[in-house]
Amino acid sequence: MLEVTAALETVLGRTQRLTPLMVPGRAPLGRVVAANVRSDIDSPPYAKSIMDGYAVRSDDAATTLTVVEEVAAGRMPTRTVGPGQAARVMTGAPIPDGADAVIPHEETKLNGDRVEIRRPVVKGKFILPRAKEMRAGEVVIPAGTKLTPAAFGLLASVGRTEVQVYPAPRLAIISTGDELVEPPARPGPGQIRNSNGPMLAVLTARAGAEARYLGIARDDKAGLEKLVRDGLERSNVLVLSGGVSAGKYDFVPDVLRESGVEAHFHKVRVKPGKPLLFGTRGDTLVFGLPGNPVSSFVGFELFVRPALRKMGGEAIPGPTFVPVPLAEELKAENDRPTYAPATLKWTSEGLRVSPAGWFGSADLRGLLNTDALISLPTGAVSYAMGFSVPTLPL
Amino acid sequence: MLEVTAALETVLGRTQRLTPLMVPGRAPLGRVVAANVRSDIDSPPYAKSIMDGYAVRSDDAATTLTVVEEVAAGRMPTRTVGPGQAARVMTGAPIPDGADAVIPHEETKLNGDRVEIRRPVVKGKFILPRAKEMRAGEVVIPAGTKLTPAAFGLLASVGRTEVQVYPAPRLAIISTGDELVEPPARPGPGQIRNSNGPMLAVLTARAGAEARYLGIARDDKAGLEKLVRDGLERSNVLVLSGGVSAGKYDFVPDVLRESGVEAHFHKVRVKPGKPLLFGTRGDTLVFGLPGNPVSSFVGFELFVRPALRKMGGEAIPGPTFVPVPLAEELKAENDRPTYAPATLKWTSEGLRVSPAGWFGSADLRGLLNTDALISLPTGAVSYAMGFSVPTLPL
Repeated sequence: MLEVTAALETVLGRTQRLTPLMVPGRAPLGRVVAANVRSDIDSPPYAKSIMDGYAVRSDDAATTLTVVEEVAAGRMPTRTVGPGQAARVMTGAPIPDGADAVIPHEETKLNGDRVEIRRPVVKGKFILPRAKEMRAGEVVIPAGTKLTPAAFGLLASVGRTEVQVYPAPRLAIISTGDELVEPPARPGPGQIRNSNGPMLAVLTARAGAEARYLGIARDDKAGLEKLVRDGLERSNVLVLSGGVSAGKYDFVPDVLRESGVEAHFHKVRVKPGKPLLFGTRGDTLVFGLPGNPVSSFVGFELFVRPALRKMGGEAIPGPTFVPVPLAEELKAENDRPTYAPATLKWTSEGLRVSPAGWFGSADLRGLLNTDALISLPTGAVSYAMGFSVPTLPL
Repeated sequence: MLEVTAALETVLGRTQRLTPLMVPGRAPLGRVVAANVRSDIDSPPYAKSIMDGYAVRSDDAATTLTVVEEVAAGRMPTRTVGPGQAARVMTGAPIPDGADAVIPHEETKLNGDRVEIRRPVVKGKFILPRAKEMRAGEVVIPAGTKLTPAAFGLLASVGRTEVQVYPAPRLAIISTGDELVEPPARPGPGQIRNSNGPMLAVLTARAGAEARYLGIARDDKAGLEKLVRDGLERSNVLVLSGGVSAGKYDFVPDVLRESGVEAHFHKVRVKPGKPLLFGTRGDTLVFGLPGNPVSSFVGFELFVRPALRKMGGEAIPGPTFVPVPLAEELKAENDRPTYAPATLKWTSEGLRVSPAGWFGSADLRGLLNTDALISLPTGAVSYAMGFSVPTLPL
């Protein structure tokens, strides 16, 4: 059976980056910039004061100077500061010619148009030189950068009102199973409510992609075919929840094949979630996730999310497991490599990870505060508190 | 001068939680649930199979049984499984009366209507008992929980199509300064582009609140008054960027006072961002952040974001600094307690933090990949690589 790393390699090997597009206005936080953003100006465009105070000549140490003008932010100086002279400057104001340092307001004493400087001045003090922040033509946001709050400040600084980014992948979700009903309907005999559809939609949104929920495919082939066709045509990724195990009523593999989907694997040596189908039709990826919630969650995070990240232009789509010490001891015994839901804890000792209470693959409640997966090997393990386990922050 | 902890205590002491509201459909990810969510049903509503296979009596060990019916998920059994009998069950299907264990399909061999069971069976194996996941009336999402992807699955499980949450705070932003122009305009002499407005709007969105950008207040009192009035009337928080230092043209404190805002402090012993105004009018909070980007960023994360978190119902609005080892050595000398922009790195050694390249409070570029602040004390420090510093993940 396929190991997780080999399965992931297959998935990422078949995943293409989406074509970048120019987004006017404010692009979504977290999208990856697809082309270098350069400055169109020197910034600051002039040497400017970073304090409210007096622009002076640093030679005029600890003396009393004549104030020749007052320069507000947004105004240009009209006078040169000569020997024995000073100009009042506000924070952000241009430094007048002749001056080469600023004395903060608090360190001076004003008498009429004379200002007393109480101590020597260091050349350049409290002045931000022209182009110190950025030069015209310089790259200020390299391609590959994720859009952060500061990136939007930088885009504004360089006059950009649009930015080229890798778009959000579009992901379609189909829930399968005759037993499913949509809330608020009360399940009848033998029925359960569909919880995977909403969970997968929100997992998709958290991964920065756009989810479209197509509804429930009952256990009849024609209905499923129709939804699959819709999902394949208008999405970068199609996720089916349920219907991929070996059950007699599981039409999913057949319908996918007949819809032109080439299957690359349908089982992975992983717990939870062994039956996991991956296929492609052209550049569209298809994932068949197990129908139970924890398997579906883990399958999404291990395989679907990295594909979404690669489509969205991320250089290392991961998942990258890093060592995090356990907040408590952990005993487990598993017959396959296991990815257990866990919670990250910021403690006075630093970052720690704690396995979620989890009794089986149907337990949504154990996932409620899950924000990490921990990797456990096949067989029995007995880890002491503080032992570092491979952890995937979500 | 006020210390950061005292200032934060003042802010949080004046911050009121918002009134919870019922959100129909899908509430935003990350909002805090305001009232316990209880299950309306037992789940599963019947003992169900968690494998495709055969429901059997565990007494009938390692034998050959007669298959009396086939139960699909979504169907109820019609027959009791008697001694020497079995029922074919799909994953999720109800367990027929009489049966008390499931044998996976792979471990059996079918001949006509006879199925060969190859090994002894443990009672209860591969059966999820009725109400094992949740009992009717049981709290499945406690008040105070943040909405995660799994929470949306749970809400669906208990038939909820609406949920009571603390709403997203509404935050209005005013940029101040005669020198500001909005992109894409090219700055004229003495002018700079407004980068703080967009950055603060995105910081607000990242904090889960709703930003409304009111525009630039020039250095004239009437214009500022109008924007402040608008901001105070329709928001939970008003943030002014710039105009709070001691400069002659800084009308902000006057205008706020005349608009009925009671000032609680206007300076904090912190670097960057000493001039930081905090006031209230009724339950509306007012922050005057320094006009330069790094000060504005740090002031927002240290003071505004915790207030937004408290309004949004979070129990511990923080900020909580936790020790994280440095990815490199760090030398610094500061005249005030300092919160330096930094980047978290997931390395093969575990989580590490690296100070951002940062040459002063005007440097937006140093903030581009900032996702943490590190706390540095007054005076000179020389920390070796691996030394743990107090870190606030953002």
